[in-house]
Amino acid sequence: MSNASLICDLARQFYDLGWVTGTGGGICIRDGDHVLIAPSGVQKERMTPDQMFTFSVDGQLLDRPLDPALRPSECTALFMTAIRLRDAGAVIHSHSMHAMIASLLFEREFVISEIEMIKGIEGMSFHDRLVVPIIENTAHECDLAASLEAAIRAYPQTKAVLVRRHGVYVWGRDWVSAKTHAECYDYLFRAAAEMRRLGVSDASFSSQPTDAYARR
Amino acid sequence: MSNASLICDLARQFYDLGWVTGTGGGICIRDGDHVLIAPSGVQKERMTPDQMFTFSVDGQLLDRPLDPALRPSECTALFMTAIRLRDAGAVIHSHSMHAMIASLLFEREFVISEIEMIKGIEGMSFHDRLVVPIIENTAHECDLAASLEAAIRAYPQTKAVLVRRHGVYVWGRDWVSAKTHAECYDYLFRAAAEMRRLGVSDASFSSQPTDAYARR
Amino acid sequence: MSNASLICDLARQFYDLGWVTGTGGGICIRDGDHVLIAPSGVQKERMTPDQMFTFSVDGQLLDRPLDPALRPSECTALFMTAIRLRDAGAVIHSHSMHAMIASLLFEREFVISEIEMIKGIEGMSFHDRLVVPIIENTAHECDLAASLEAAIRAYPQTKAVLVRRHGVYVWGRDWVSAKTHAECYDYLFRAAAEMRRLGVSDASFSSQPTDAYARR
Amino acid sequence: MSNASLICDLARQFYDLGWVTGTGGGICIRDGDHVLIAPSGVQKERMTPDQMFTFSVDGQLLDRPLDPALRPSECTALFMTAIRLRDAGAVIHSHSMHAMIASLLFEREFVISEIEMIKGIEGMSFHDRLVVPIIENTAHECDLAASLEAAIRAYPQTKAVLVRRHGVYVWGRDWVSAKTHAECYDYLFRAAAEMRRLGVSDASFSSQPTDAYARR
Repeated sequence: MSNASLICDLARQFYDLGWVTGTGGGICIRDGDHVLIAPSGVQKERMTPDQMFTFSVDGQLLDRPLDPALRPSECTALFMTAIRLRDAGAVIHSHSMHAMIASLLFEREFVISEIEMIKGIEGMSFHDRLVVPIIENTAHECDLAASLEAAIRAYPQTKAVLVRRHGVYVWGRDWVSAKTHAECYDYLFRAAAEMRRLGVSDASFSSQPTDAYARR
Repeated sequence: MSNASLICDLARQFYDLGWVTGTGGGICIRDGDHVLIAPSGVQKERMTPDQMFTFSVDGQLLDRPLDPALRPSECTALFMTAIRLRDAGAVIHSHSMHAMIASLLFEREFVISEIEMIKGIEGMSFHDRLVVPIIENTAHECDLAASLEAAIRAYPQTKAVLVRRHGVYVWGRDWVSAKTHAECYDYLFRAAAEMRRLGVSDASFSSQPTDAYARR
Repeated sequence: MSNASLICDLARQFYDLGWVTGTGGGICIRDGDHVLIAPSGVQKERMTPDQMFTFSVDGQLLDRPLDPALRPSECTALFMTAIRLRDAGAVIHSHSMHAMIASLLFEREFVISEIEMIKGIEGMSFHDRLVVPIIENTAHECDLAASLEAAIRAYPQTKAVLVRRHGVYVWGRDWVSAKTHAECYDYLFRAAAEMRRLGVSDASFSSQPTDAYARR
Repeated sequence: MSNASLICDLARQFYDLGWVTGTGGGICIRDGDHVLIAPSGVQKERMTPDQMFTFSVDGQLLDRPLDPALRPSECTALFMTAIRLRDAGAVIHSHSMHAMIASLLFEREFVISEIEMIKGIEGMSFHDRLVVPIIENTAHECDLAASLEAAIRAYPQTKAVLVRRHGVYVWGRDWVSAKTHAECYDYLFRAAAEMRRLGVSDASFSSQPTDAYARR
């Protein structure tokens, strides 16, 4: 499957997950020093491969769809930031309700620990403290680039940045890694809200036995 | 795809979203001065293109399906109100649980601000206060027309009117715009309930920095 | 589509709605004085038309599938009760979480009023008080027949009976009516729980204006 | 359908149920003294039959996919434990949010009674007390084997073991039984959380009539 077809296929899957409704959200896939980016403001579950834009990694427009009404995704600058700073092979932007709500449960950092799905994030293990920085939203998506870059630099281990009252940017070394990260983060965002709703504190029934702490 | 096929296709999608179960809800699409309207009381996810009615914009029945048991949607008068007053190209009526519940969280107006998905509503930006008027339900759907018209006139910027304990009417300049609006409103209705459930106030972690307020 | 194929098709739809997981729940369709009934204890989303049983309306087995391991649904006696007492053309048994939870929110009768979806139940209008009797569950499904019959006789207007901690039986004059009723009841069961969770009382923002009450 | 195709088909279904997102979870199917096991760390909804590993029941690798990058599921040792101790014909490992949350609502045992879906678990009836042991999670999935084995031995009637902050292992005598069990347990885990959220105690409106208690 070509990367253009793959973007359309993934976008349909993300629509069913509630990540890209209302023409929001998106995905880009890098192939060497080319980046394939979907158009802005279109129905993400109805895109076709001929609607994609191609940029160079340094942000030059190389190819565009024939339809003159199409503009590249407003996330382009943000996608490029993650590609440039982290050598990402794919970046997913989701408006998932779970991500949006998670950004309202924490002040500056989303933090969770001891949930198995944390292990789905590259480099993380079960007992690690997973931290996702939260940046403030701006009126225009392109104005997020500076604070996204600052957050990525300040949190060298993160594979995601939450945008308050908005959603999340997630990346990985290739599209499989980015999608896996996006699914794991989404699960963790939802888990945090479910635990809050049920009055289960983060430390309830910790899997690490008490004497293990004592031994430290 | 013909507009008749498109209505069937969208209705299946809306069924999966929970907007048109129990034969409720519906959609109409305008083509110039003709309006295509689905039948009343049928299973919306199983409609076929030959079941559609055609009306003129001023409400005259121009064409009808062969099946004599079919009657035009009870929403017809309401759909025509939005088309006439707002030059809508398509109108969606949803019984989404999120819309119904949202109508019970506010007295006269649904209000939300600083959620990214607000930007999906034409003419609105992130910091705007999105207001959706709520009208009271009536025993018969056709009796809603007068109060729907009053609400549309009283709220010139709105693209939707909530009907208490019932659902929502949403429109746009064409079917893509109407569907985008419907998805964004639905997200916002759900967000309001989720925030209420988690005890997150509308102003929690506002994205507008504190010093921005001070500068006013 | 034959009724046997239709049962398989509907069962897949009900599986996706969460009504018939774990081999639970089911549907029967009557054709004149024959009733088509699905097998017991099979995966409802994977049934094939050749697995159906045919009974006469008075409960005689007329035809059975070749596979000797198949037994008719344990709901058979209950399906026949609704067919016999109400001349139902189809009966749906759902284990929907919403139905099960609704049976725990009320002592003897599920009651709701002034929700638009009430109008989807034959004979009901928006301001009517919709009542669904709740019967107690039994260890064996067949032992429910007597109390189901008593509830149907005691509530001549109902199209459904809730079974506590179990689910719901819903019927209609044909399969379309039964399915429409099942979708509307399910919406109403879910609405009651959502309203309870949000602390919205049944009378909040009643659509019937106060002076309407005064005029009575 | 071959067992390899069946595993792919079931994995797609489990993905839609939210049980195997983020490459987590899995399923194995036994055929006589061979066990078919899916690869580790792959997108479970996109697997193909040629990616499967074959083990003997005593844990010897008999056949592997051509792709050298594939490793057998990290659940292999755990799958084998249920097969060896219980003669299971299939084992499902799910990261379902409902299972994960259920592991946080109880200290050592998930307990529920008088919910119809309990009858979907082999050997259980409606009034039985369904108990699922909860074991503590470990940093590495393979380190769960000892405590999983201990739990299986200590709870001879259980068909499932919850892993705290992680998910659940469920089995059955064949794949249909394992899938049925997995769906029933998942329903019961979700029901427990829904009841907790609504303040409905486990004994609310017990289906066992009061005089039945008096007669004891």
